[in-house]
Amino acid sequence: MIKQVVIGIVCGAAVLTAGILIGHFGITKSVSSAPSWVKDVAKDVDESLIEKFMSEVDNIQIQENLRELTKVPHMATTPGDEKTVQLMLKRWQDKETGLDQAWREEYLVYLSFPDPKKPNKVTVVSPTDTVLHTAREKEKSYPPEQDDPDVVQPYAAYSPAGHPKGKLVYANYGKPTDYLKLNETVDLRGTIAITRYGGAGRAAKAINAAPYGVVGVLVYTDPFDINDGLMSDLNETYPHSWYLPPSGVERGSFKTDYGDMLTPYLAAKDDTYRIPVESITGIPPIPIQPIGFEDAYRLICELGGEEAPGLWQGAFNCTYNFGGPGFKNTSVFNNSDVKLDIFNLEEKKNSSNVMGVIRGSVEPDRYVIYGNHRDSWVHGAIDPSSGTSVMLELTRVLGRMVKQGKWRPRRSIIFGSWGAEEFGLIGSAEYTEQYFTKLSERTVAYINVDIAVFANATLRASGMPSLQNVIFKATKQVDTPGLASTSVYENWIKYFSRTSPAHGHIPKMGYLSGAGSDYAAFVHYLGISSMDLAFTYDRNKTNARIYPAYHTAYDTFNYASKYIDPGFVSHQAVGRTAGNILMRLADSLVLPLNCSDYAEILEDYLSTAVKLYQSELQAKKISMEPLKRAVASFRTAATHLDKVIHGSDLANETPLKIRRINDQLMLLDRAFLNPLAFPDKYAFRHVIWASSSAGKPTFPGLADAFDSAESSEQSSAWDKVHYHLSVLSQAIEGAADTLVDVI
Amino acid sequence: MIKQVVIGIVCGAAVLTAGILIGHFGITKSVSSAPSWVKDVAKDVDESLIEKFMSEVDNIQIQENLRELTKVPHMATTPGDEKTVQLMLKRWQDKETGLDQAWREEYLVYLSFPDPKKPNKVTVVSPTDTVLHTAREKEKSYPPEQDDPDVVQPYAAYSPAGHPKGKLVYANYGKPTDYLKLNETVDLRGTIAITRYGGAGRAAKAINAAPYGVVGVLVYTDPFDINDGLMSDLNETYPHSWYLPPSGVERGSFKTDYGDMLTPYLAAKDDTYRIPVESITGIPPIPIQPIGFEDAYRLICELGGEEAPGLWQGAFNCTYNFGGPGFKNTSVFNNSDVKLDIFNLEEKKNSSNVMGVIRGSVEPDRYVIYGNHRDSWVHGAIDPSSGTSVMLELTRVLGRMVKQGKWRPRRSIIFGSWGAEEFGLIGSAEYTEQYFTKLSERTVAYINVDIAVFANATLRASGMPSLQNVIFKATKQVDTPGLASTSVYENWIKYFSRTSPAHGHIPKMGYLSGAGSDYAAFVHYLGISSMDLAFTYDRNKTNARIYPAYHTAYDTFNYASKYIDPGFVSHQAVGRTAGNILMRLADSLVLPLNCSDYAEILEDYLSTAVKLYQSELQAKKISMEPLKRAVASFRTAATHLDKVIHGSDLANETPLKIRRINDQLMLLDRAFLNPLAFPDKYAFRHVIWASSSAGKPTFPGLADAFDSAESSEQSSAWDKVHYHLSVLSQAIEGAADTLVDVI
Repeated sequence: MIKQVVIGIVCGAAVLTAGILIGHFGITKSVSSAPSWVKDVAKDVDESLIEKFMSEVDNIQIQENLRELTKVPHMATTPGDEKTVQLMLKRWQDKETGLDQAWREEYLVYLSFPDPKKPNKVTVVSPTDTVLHTAREKEKSYPPEQDDPDVVQPYAAYSPAGHPKGKLVYANYGKPTDYLKLNETVDLRGTIAITRYGGAGRAAKAINAAPYGVVGVLVYTDPFDINDGLMSDLNETYPHSWYLPPSGVERGSFKTDYGDMLTPYLAAKDDTYRIPVESITGIPPIPIQPIGFEDAYRLICELGGEEAPGLWQGAFNCTYNFGGPGFKNTSVFNNSDVKLDIFNLEEKKNSSNVMGVIRGSVEPDRYVIYGNHRDSWVHGAIDPSSGTSVMLELTRVLGRMVKQGKWRPRRSIIFGSWGAEEFGLIGSAEYTEQYFTKLSERTVAYINVDIAVFANATLRASGMPSLQNVIFKATKQVDTPGLASTSVYENWIKYFSRTSPAHGHIPKMGYLSGAGSDYAAFVHYLGISSMDLAFTYDRNKTNARIYPAYHTAYDTFNYASKYIDPGFVSHQAVGRTAGNILMRLADSLVLPLNCSDYAEILEDYLSTAVKLYQSELQAKKISMEPLKRAVASFRTAATHLDKVIHGSDLANETPLKIRRINDQLMLLDRAFLNPLAFPDKYAFRHVIWASSSAGKPTFPGLADAFDSAESSEQSSAWDKVHYHLSVLSQAIEGAADTLVDVI
Repeated sequence: MIKQVVIGIVCGAAVLTAGILIGHFGITKSVSSAPSWVKDVAKDVDESLIEKFMSEVDNIQIQENLRELTKVPHMATTPGDEKTVQLMLKRWQDKETGLDQAWREEYLVYLSFPDPKKPNKVTVVSPTDTVLHTAREKEKSYPPEQDDPDVVQPYAAYSPAGHPKGKLVYANYGKPTDYLKLNETVDLRGTIAITRYGGAGRAAKAINAAPYGVVGVLVYTDPFDINDGLMSDLNETYPHSWYLPPSGVERGSFKTDYGDMLTPYLAAKDDTYRIPVESITGIPPIPIQPIGFEDAYRLICELGGEEAPGLWQGAFNCTYNFGGPGFKNTSVFNNSDVKLDIFNLEEKKNSSNVMGVIRGSVEPDRYVIYGNHRDSWVHGAIDPSSGTSVMLELTRVLGRMVKQGKWRPRRSIIFGSWGAEEFGLIGSAEYTEQYFTKLSERTVAYINVDIAVFANATLRASGMPSLQNVIFKATKQVDTPGLASTSVYENWIKYFSRTSPAHGHIPKMGYLSGAGSDYAAFVHYLGISSMDLAFTYDRNKTNARIYPAYHTAYDTFNYASKYIDPGFVSHQAVGRTAGNILMRLADSLVLPLNCSDYAEILEDYLSTAVKLYQSELQAKKISMEPLKRAVASFRTAATHLDKVIHGSDLANETPLKIRRINDQLMLLDRAFLNPLAFPDKYAFRHVIWASSSAGKPTFPGLADAFDSAESSEQSSAWDKVHYHLSVLSQAIEGAADTLVDVI
């Protein structure tokens, strides 16, 4: 009986268990079973995949990318440029390491080149028309790269052709104040001005000169500004060091506004309306030509006239005089003119962007964009190929993870290899004009890595304050090359730091207020949260304005691998950092954008503005209260949104709530756009980050309007200050409105 | 044994069953159980709730709303206006039938009023300064409403004050061509022009006159244009019919641009920058005053000079002459002048919008906005209170459903009771300026019901083509008043119809190209898909330009209930239709916006443009191919998106896919915005629906640019055509880009 009972219990238990199992696994819970996508939509960043990515970013691959990219000069629209197009396409379409899709997009854009048959000339001509001196036409050749027939001779893109001749004067950096000062002593009518790079935009050096009657401008790089004073190529400059040889010449685009100049606000397609060439503004009205300091030395040290002020003196071992105008009586050039023979030609040419895409799995309609330009002036090893070789390594590693099925980002990633950046950010600007709506609606962030490594000392990051947090996070996970136990973050803070009211001692980010690289259209025209990343200098070691081979024929693989980043480990660190950030932006459930960090910077700007302007504005009966209220509203709203983000278990909430928060974060920078805020600045619409001539660490439009009003005698100039204050306050209030409860 | 076996089997079965039940219900399937929100996010329109709503919309409630709203005149910012503010707030904050929230928002706006102490005067003055005739200052009183001391005397808002005097001329509608014609015969310098309403904007009648030296303008409503010729108040006009009595005067805002004129593009808050009053454009440069046709009859029939053309003749039983200038020799007014004494005052006053909200349950960050203005000129029974009384009934029914827990929309609904519309759509414009970013990002659609019932014959609907489908759907579910078995749709198609390539014979929608009501800022400035709904005339029965009491002291409850909509059943039909549409927009899983219907209209516009312009443009070497390609891209993209919508079981897809599609649909109209498209038109940014002087059924900017170029002698005028073609093509391509696969 006991046995029977035991058997009964055992059988019963077995049957019960079977029943439980059938009930649990065998019958679908029709009401409450979860659709397969429920898990997908809650997916967050996978830290192990980020680690995997970082471990696979390889310095030797980057080095070999650079070697291939810099084989030949690849100035925009040349055969060398086309080779890089093909290279990008081949890599991005690779079946094992490529992206989901890659293609090219062409724009017909307005460029400027020297005439290959008639080289530009700069000469010193005696009163009897004897040529006493001719500036070097091509940079001196050290390693053989400079001999490549495709090296473009030094010129100022968009300088008009012409043959001005006149007495030489020295105009320092060619700033408005420089010409004003010079004009007090010298009659500038009919003169040629020699200026040095730095201090003012390239085109500005000629634009500022023309009203004084100057007929032509020379520009050179003073060893003081680029070489820490060194001048000799016997043992000091390249190929003995990273310094610029005496014959080196910085090329460049001499224009004020970015994008294709014939098609403002329109993508430069074949049939697009083009403004008449005569209507172009912001380019040199008189011929201008860059020369090496070897020639500048000859010219400047022979100048007569009064001694120029101390701040105008450069590194030459002579006194920099204003010019009589013209040369000293004692000079062999006495009474001689300087003559420019400029034969530049403008041309409409097809320039290509190469685009690549990794499709997002959960939110394909959200884009993280990563870009760099592809075109260089000559071989462009640092500018831009350091960035391009990093981008190619990044896409190789990510592409392989995608092809192997190990990873697919939550959001879509778009890679842009922009064309014709050197001619004024043209490829990226046209892209944003063509896809304005789509990009405005869907872009989460833009990452720009142009020159990846200016120098190998430390990271430098600029961007919207909302991105600070994700940049910090990534940099804490990357080692500083050569300092194994020091993160990029820890190294960075040694070079650039500040005290944040919220976070204490932290690395100091820069701001993207200007238009120095392809982030410009994303920041200023589209209002997309953007960043620009690079490794840069130890300012204790050099005062060079920029790495000395910049835009010269010496910016080669040899130069980069020998003097900028031997072993390409800084390139690798940039790649790891940028890729880490990219993956976080693409994969995070809640976007890693922090609006409270934005509030901090607005408060900082406000307190500076109050300090600088309030008492004078009060005297003019212009109230700063609306601006104060707006910044306070923004802070309150940011705090509130942070609470919403951190106060709930979002992974278990409806995906529409997360999407709502992400939209608030994604669109935050869009709220600061006002197409009417800067009527005089082409395609500058972001009221917080515009370029500014006032040079004050505060709201740029307010600072500029205030400066103009102060120096103006018209009371209507104060109206413009008041107007801009209203524009600014309304934009910040509008941004705050988007961060509070959605209804 | 059998018994034991049976017991064993029964017990075993019972245990098994218990096990199954425990397994199925007792143990949570941790992996696959669905979160509670899965069902919510897939919720679609509930047809039974729409039926419930429609059945509860009550004509008597509407009638009583109207009675209350029209007790006193409620011109913007007057005590009567404040009473309506309080009424709206009380209703919308009601605990049983109110909304989730309601509040007021104030703007300090620039208005214009007659001086209550110095009434405006229009007189005929003899050469010896004897006053021979004085125009009536107040409209004649029939029922007692017209005696209310708060009835504002007829005036032209924004006419400057002044005392011009001169010989009278007749200038028809005051169009540019009218003055041109008149000037061929009469020297207009120093004259007063009398014009009739219609044919040109109010302000334009004075703006067009001033360049000819005209010093003052009168405007009246000709019985030909408003009364089907009837003139006598003994038995023909109100109170005997809906026709305008001889002393009735249309008031109005005499300005060209919408919104507060002192704060363009900025919300008119207390501290907002205001432009100097002298900088205002688009208002009469010379005094202008409206008068009744009773006085106009006296003046016009006495005019000398040549007989005006046939199309200039109105309904008076005399010949309309140009004026000598001045009166006939045989007239008692011979040699007399007409004198205007205008004492209008401009004032900045606080005007209120009343806002109300029903919070969305699933997508609170998506808004459907429903609005109407609250301010009238006098009692405003039709304009705007017919719309307001419908809105109040709609919010009562919906509010109750919400308060009773029977319904909560998927998306948020915002109700706006706008202030100061009569002064140029000010309340709605300031609202869109203040909340530009938030509204741009989140608004699904705007529904405007201003005058709900112009007349009781048929529905009239205007709006973006994408809304056609949801309007059709709703109108098929509402009965036509008095025609029980005829839907509003079936009745509508009898009055307005067209043949659609896709749908065959369908009702014809109008377009919102102008700025006739508060939809303007939503359409033109924000690019939000919008509609305007009303019941309107049987054009076989009347040629009245508009309902005859428009903007007069006769637009009263008595007038509305007796002559416009006895029983308020047309009001009820409008309420049912608008609410039905509102609920569909707020509740549909996939937004009921149809992009293929948009494509059809773009194709229609294109084919008209090709017919009208292509051959001449070809001769100027301007290609229409980019526009053709853009429209074709749009069609392809629309077809594709339609396929995505209808090709999958969206209710079972991830909510992020539905949201993605909904964003594509919601943002479609935003893609057509370009702030640079119409540099001369304030706050017109939508390239498809702008106002146009060319009067061609095609792209407005193209039509206007083509017209100007044709009449211009400068070849640069053709550049503007080409430019606008590029703007247009890029916008349409940009819109198409947003409809294709998101990456």
